[in-house]
Amino acid sequence: MDVKFVNPFLSSLLNVLTTMAQLELKPGKPKLKKDEVARGDVSGLIGMVGPQLKGSFSVSFDRSLAFEIMRRMLGETPSSVNEEVTDMVGEITNMVTGGAKRILADDGYDFSMATPVVVSGPAHTITHKNDGAKMMMPFTCEYGEATIEICFEKA
Amino acid sequence: MDVKFVNPFLSSLLNVLTTMAQLELKPGKPKLKKDEVARGDVSGLIGMVGPQLKGSFSVSFDRSLAFEIMRRMLGETPSSVNEEVTDMVGEITNMVTGGAKRILADDGYDFSMATPVVVSGPAHTITHKNDGAKMMMPFTCEYGEATIEICFEKA
Repeated sequence: MDVKFVNPFLSSLLNVLTTMAQLELKPGKPKLKKDEVARGDVSGLIGMVGPQLKGSFSVSFDRSLAFEIMRRMLGETPSSVNEEVTDMVGEITNMVTGGAKRILADDGYDFSMATPVVVSGPAHTITHKNDGAKMMMPFTCEYGEATIEICFEKA
Repeated sequence: MDVKFVNPFLSSLLNVLTTMAQLELKPGKPKLKKDEVARGDVSGLIGMVGPQLKGSFSVSFDRSLAFEIMRRMLGETPSSVNEEVTDMVGEITNMVTGGAKRILADDGYDFSMATPVVVSGPAHTITHKNDGAKMMMPFTCEYGEATIEICFEKA
């Protein structure tokens, strides 16, 4: 998978978090390694299907970072990964994928988005099962870490 | 969401596990309740997109049940939720959704499947974020429990 598929998701995540939560994440190095797994306490996942490509996107947050985003977006600090937190993570997943979709459409890659699914559980891992390469990109800030993964294969 | 969308996934799961692992699961009562969450140790998720519908499907297994399916399919008993186990769960997710897709196509409902994502982590929960109703169906056998969830909304 080309790096041109990663940048739209990367810039869309930064844009969503700056706009919605006035939070600046620092992107780390993208990784292609197959044996790395994304680990997080709450993750949003979404499937994508297009004429040329199909795949999946995930964004995983440390619990502390998800709570800080909630505090900044809604002015309240949750004490657990409750329905409001999973709603927010589902919404972020939709917004990031929607933003990337618009950028990729300009490059001639169209896809439709399925609906998001949110997973919660301490330090769960996510594995994208796909014949294409898996791109992983970590992000950090003072409140914790986030990781996005993008995986596309030929439809 | 109509129960007609659930039965194809239900019968497809039973069929896949009987065929691949000679394992008979006993279906429990389908549930529509919004506040129930599926809990499992390893789950497969997949997005679906069609002209009339979009949504998501998940199947969650207790670790003990996933290990027994591995033992029956591949003749080996894993000691952890390793890559072979997540590969198997991803493959089951693909096969169950593919089987349901063929049945639903006969009823005039077409959709394309994204690629599966597998989540592992003790007793994680899955929440489908979707405007449609969520159908949940538990299954039991002597080795543990499985739960499927199906969620569709108008595209």
